[in-house]
Amino acid sequence: MAVISATPLVVEQARDDIERELERYFDDRVASATEYGDDVVELWQLAARSVLGGKLVRPRLMVDAYEALSEGTSSPAHGVRFSPHGTGTDAPSMATIVSIASAIELLHYSFLLHDDVIDGDLVRRGQPNLIGALMQSAHDGQHRAGTAASARPEATLHWARAGGVLMGDLLLSSTHQTFARAPLPQVTRERLLDVLDNAITESVAGEYLDVGLGDGVFAADLDTILRMCGYKTAAYTFELPLLAAAALAGASPELERSLAAAGRHLGLAFQLQDDLLSTFGDHAEHGKDPFSDLREGKQTALIAYARRTDAWSGIEASLGMSHLSDVDGLRLRGLLAECGADRFVQGLIDAQLRAFNDAVGSLSAEAPPRMAQVLTRLARQLAGRRS
Amino acid sequence: MAVISATPLVVEQARDDIERELERYFDDRVASATEYGDDVVELWQLAARSVLGGKLVRPRLMVDAYEALSEGTSSPAHGVRFSPHGTGTDAPSMATIVSIASAIELLHYSFLLHDDVIDGDLVRRGQPNLIGALMQSAHDGQHRAGTAASARPEATLHWARAGGVLMGDLLLSSTHQTFARAPLPQVTRERLLDVLDNAITESVAGEYLDVGLGDGVFAADLDTILRMCGYKTAAYTFELPLLAAAALAGASPELERSLAAAGRHLGLAFQLQDDLLSTFGDHAEHGKDPFSDLREGKQTALIAYARRTDAWSGIEASLGMSHLSDVDGLRLRGLLAECGADRFVQGLIDAQLRAFNDAVGSLSAEAPPRMAQVLTRLARQLAGRRS
Repeated sequence: MAVISATPLVVEQARDDIERELERYFDDRVASATEYGDDVVELWQLAARSVLGGKLVRPRLMVDAYEALSEGTSSPAHGVRFSPHGTGTDAPSMATIVSIASAIELLHYSFLLHDDVIDGDLVRRGQPNLIGALMQSAHDGQHRAGTAASARPEATLHWARAGGVLMGDLLLSSTHQTFARAPLPQVTRERLLDVLDNAITESVAGEYLDVGLGDGVFAADLDTILRMCGYKTAAYTFELPLLAAAALAGASPELERSLAAAGRHLGLAFQLQDDLLSTFGDHAEHGKDPFSDLREGKQTALIAYARRTDAWSGIEASLGMSHLSDVDGLRLRGLLAECGADRFVQGLIDAQLRAFNDAVGSLSAEAPPRMAQVLTRLARQLAGRRS
Repeated sequence: MAVISATPLVVEQARDDIERELERYFDDRVASATEYGDDVVELWQLAARSVLGGKLVRPRLMVDAYEALSEGTSSPAHGVRFSPHGTGTDAPSMATIVSIASAIELLHYSFLLHDDVIDGDLVRRGQPNLIGALMQSAHDGQHRAGTAASARPEATLHWARAGGVLMGDLLLSSTHQTFARAPLPQVTRERLLDVLDNAITESVAGEYLDVGLGDGVFAADLDTILRMCGYKTAAYTFELPLLAAAALAGASPELERSLAAAGRHLGLAFQLQDDLLSTFGDHAEHGKDPFSDLREGKQTALIAYARRTDAWSGIEASLGMSHLSDVDGLRLRGLLAECGADRFVQGLIDAQLRAFNDAVGSLSAEAPPRMAQVLTRLARQLAGRRS
């Protein structure tokens, strides 16, 4: 998953609005859950704690893009606004924009939860995730009248993972409910639903390929790896916010296509850079294990390239050994550099950035100039990353 | 999960229509998946094979109920039809009815899949479920150019379960997409979305409680067990089809309440009877292990009752022993009968059926008589079950 920061272009009001909307959502859900008893209330409370306080990268990008696209809509010169069903150019209210943006954050969290279920992870970014928090709660067991203390650890883990599956389902459902109820003309709502459907379909395809590649079920050729990277990150991190903004702003199909292309290429560039930096980045800075991808045997573009070179015979045997020593890790990294894998991946990133720039260029004639600024600002983060 | 048959009241045309709609859905998804490669195509093909050919209990109940509620709507005497937003009494098209009914089947299958992920099951009703089918496919590996043959079994299982999580997410999303796009007045669509939201929220609460009870994390008191049974089965098996039909037929809020009550009580009766028959039913007939609940240590109303009697000391130690002998199984069943647990649960079922009959009685004045027939026909299955 590409690590990016939210673009700080637009007033930080949006951030507060989104955070408040999410707080309101969880407050409502916690209140309704009392009907189902304390244990379901706790599930919602722990979910709220996991979701709130995030960087809100995706919803903020959506609001940024929407504000940029809506700039100067009173002037027909920009031509980015059309009137669905001839109902006039009534812009959606800021409350609607914020609710769609918040729903995108819930979708993100639903994906993270189901990823964690699949990978058996209890921690995300150094904090217990929902599953870890449920384990902790069962272990503490202070507030339970029940038999928590006596449950076997593997039974508790089973229950906590079920909580992860089920809360993911609830958040995924809520995302759809918000899109389906947005007070918008039905034609706009259906464009939003199309965008959502596509983002989910692509992200799921990406995750499915990623797991299958990692488990050695799918052949790890470069083409499959690149497709996986594109689906997994670009679709819902970049394309979804940009295309939701376009639908809400009533952007033309041409502008939509340019935004989709820009999002897709930038997303792939971010994902490829993630993989590159994970092994070749500045580890003093990001503080992570520099050999974790190599120890996991993760199928990245680096590895797919190396597989086609003479260096492969020296790499193959050690790749994916969980007890890989640091000395062997350094040796593998050396072999990857020697065969040119890092330069190859940097070349892929550069190509994606050129395609991104072309897409941005193709929209500048039609969209308000600020839209291009939002995108280039986002891309600039890529150039500055060292870890 | 309560095993019920579809009510054969309405023309079997509905069954064919629903089956065809589901086939069309999967055909479309398989076709779109080619964009993501053969592996994603296969995931959709195997999902289609699992879903198609089912009994369609829930969607057929919805169509049955809708047809019953719509009978004689041209006569205002029935008073069950109102005009949302004063847009006239345009009834939804049969295509819309069938698409909502089919979406309810997809929701059902999404729940089954996520249940199977949680429980680690590879088989459902004697056939491989989607996870089992994926395992089989990876094992056969004939059509793959990849490394399928070399993947370790636990890695293959990990990937197959990921497929279960992700396909469940896709089907859950599709259910919402269908509800959100139904060509209906927005007020009707929002009633349908309310019904869906409530069904999902309740079912998830029921599943969460069920897993927590089974894992010994939640205290297994009778109240929690009964709430769990009601949420888990009644909400989406009975209430969802009945209330979706009510929303589509424009039923009054009073009629909606009666239908909800009827569905809730009947659903709980079915679930309690399932638990009763699992241990006390005719095992020559259902062919299942008569002691499976006792071996699993399943927290049912039988057990919750027994826990409060003197018989408990003789039951407690053997309950949940996976290697329980048939002799010990017979002994446990004897103790449960001796302390009156089976009569107690039968009393609970009878009470739910009385409440169900009251609810049916309260709707007969307002709804077309056929609605009561649909419900009593459904309830009659309960009386006839021996296994």
